[in-house]
Amino acid sequence: MAKRMGRRTLALENRPGIVSYAAVVGGKEGAGPLKKGFDEVSQDSYFGQDSWEKAETAMLGRCLDLCKEKAGGTTPELILGGDLLNQCVSSAFAVKDRGIPYLGLYGACSTMAEGLALAALLLDGGGVDSALAFTGSHFCAAERQYRFPLEYGGQRTPTSQWTVTGAGAALLSKEGGGLRITHATTGRVVDAGVTDANNMGAAMAPAAFDTLLAHFADTGRDFSDYDAVFTGDLGAVGHDILQDMLQKEGLSPGAQYLDCGVLMYDLLTQDVHAGGSGCGCSASVLAAHILPAMERGVWKRVLFAGTGALMSPLTCQQGCSIPGVCHAVAIERRDAV
Amino acid sequence: MAKRMGRRTLALENRPGIVSYAAVVGGKEGAGPLKKGFDEVSQDSYFGQDSWEKAETAMLGRCLDLCKEKAGGTTPELILGGDLLNQCVSSAFAVKDRGIPYLGLYGACSTMAEGLALAALLLDGGGVDSALAFTGSHFCAAERQYRFPLEYGGQRTPTSQWTVTGAGAALLSKEGGGLRITHATTGRVVDAGVTDANNMGAAMAPAAFDTLLAHFADTGRDFSDYDAVFTGDLGAVGHDILQDMLQKEGLSPGAQYLDCGVLMYDLLTQDVHAGGSGCGCSASVLAAHILPAMERGVWKRVLFAGTGALMSPLTCQQGCSIPGVCHAVAIERRDAV
Repeated sequence: MAKRMGRRTLALENRPGIVSYAAVVGGKEGAGPLKKGFDEVSQDSYFGQDSWEKAETAMLGRCLDLCKEKAGGTTPELILGGDLLNQCVSSAFAVKDRGIPYLGLYGACSTMAEGLALAALLLDGGGVDSALAFTGSHFCAAERQYRFPLEYGGQRTPTSQWTVTGAGAALLSKEGGGLRITHATTGRVVDAGVTDANNMGAAMAPAAFDTLLAHFADTGRDFSDYDAVFTGDLGAVGHDILQDMLQKEGLSPGAQYLDCGVLMYDLLTQDVHAGGSGCGCSASVLAAHILPAMERGVWKRVLFAGTGALMSPLTCQQGCSIPGVCHAVAIERRDAV
Repeated sequence: MAKRMGRRTLALENRPGIVSYAAVVGGKEGAGPLKKGFDEVSQDSYFGQDSWEKAETAMLGRCLDLCKEKAGGTTPELILGGDLLNQCVSSAFAVKDRGIPYLGLYGACSTMAEGLALAALLLDGGGVDSALAFTGSHFCAAERQYRFPLEYGGQRTPTSQWTVTGAGAALLSKEGGGLRITHATTGRVVDAGVTDANNMGAAMAPAAFDTLLAHFADTGRDFSDYDAVFTGDLGAVGHDILQDMLQKEGLSPGAQYLDCGVLMYDLLTQDVHAGGSGCGCSASVLAAHILPAMERGVWKRVLFAGTGALMSPLTCQQGCSIPGVCHAVAIERRDAV
């Protein structure tokens, strides 16, 4: 039974465990600083398919298969997932004909955190014994859907981010795994009035701020209680905005505040401007970097705060500002005090 | 604590209750057979806004407000919702700045059933005391996104359905309400190979068949245990396909099998071809017709099986077939035997 703490946090009494996880990425991601952590790197941006959207589906399917294999072939009772394509088709097509019940989510780039939170809550509350959360994104599919066809060769602004070609999955169960999900703080839709669709970091930072503050207030914790706190994909610009906001609030994020969008690429040499973004960013950094490092004992207690910008090209064209959302889950080694 | 029954059904031991519900629709829906049940009918298809997408957002927001008002102003702890627009923007914008945590879903036209199932599971498993599920769709916004701009005046095929301009919401709590959610059966993504984007009923019927069979097998029930079984929006074509499939399986759906897409309009006079569809179809029929009739005692036990087609214009253009999904929740009067 999950227990409510404060206004927005649920403490998971049974602490569902992460049994396995997997990350599959593209060549650019596989050449970055986290290259050793990915399960598979595809040098073929089409992943053997004839369109980028089908490539995204194939990548997600491969990631699902790997995650199941790493759990000894366990078939989860339930899959939760989503993606950035219109009508979330790549995740729906990736689970098609697998015979596993599927709950589709839309949390934009916060989908991995949303899926983990929901999976953990469903496991904690009984009934469901195992659930898999997954998501991903593909740079080429996202560019042509959100911005311009790649062939157009459009210039990118300094604050823009690079949509990660990557997928991440995690299989949770009631019993298994040395890493446990202990808390979930759900996010509110926060609109700070940002209208620049090329500055997602600025649009999402206020939502991350809102959720981190709620998590800390609800649990009585602060940054010092975590070995590391990760936002999903604020990138370098959003990371710094959030750090400023936190410091003005009297919090000391310090070196343990990290952002998956900053970690994914070498910002100096990989020409990604403000860093990585997309559903696949936090999902693949979680599976390739955060969880493995926790298993090695680098960190014992981590807060994973996925961030999403809830806009579409149409809302931007109609002059709407860009709201953000942030869902956070606390993950802990079984031996953390 | 939810308890697993069979392979795909969860029995909700605490039977979360439906405290309030609301439906807001457009003029065409308000002129149909269910006209007496809607809380509000807007003769202005723009709902006071300057675009159809903003109209959809306004309609959803109004439905949320009404649902809260009808629950005596109760603010739910959590909102679950989604819609059909790219990146699910109308639901995200409708909850923006409301200060309530939001979990975005994408279940296409099955979103209301998915949201009800998840809300009920989160309530049953502890932690969450109240949750609101909502969704909606707008004919004009859907037409220009999925098919053609209205100004083009394209002909519609006989099997096509009319996207409902409507929104539905239901507020659930652990304690309140005479109508209780007793079971949730989650859907698998089923692809029967249908490629005609103007025949959604045929594309979704196999998913409904799959979920109904699973629900009956898991619970030991059949049609005779329900006063009425509703599919979401198969329309007249999909309704008949599903009825045939069920009869071949030896089941007797009979008169208690109904479809929200068939109920929404007068198929003979309202020129909607095969009937209603869209997220707003099953959501507003639930709130305007099914739940009120249950409260009046017309039906004591109902199965509400939301159906969704998990496609996009792009997947159809790329030659992919159209998979479907169906999530079912059993709703019961407290005094049902």
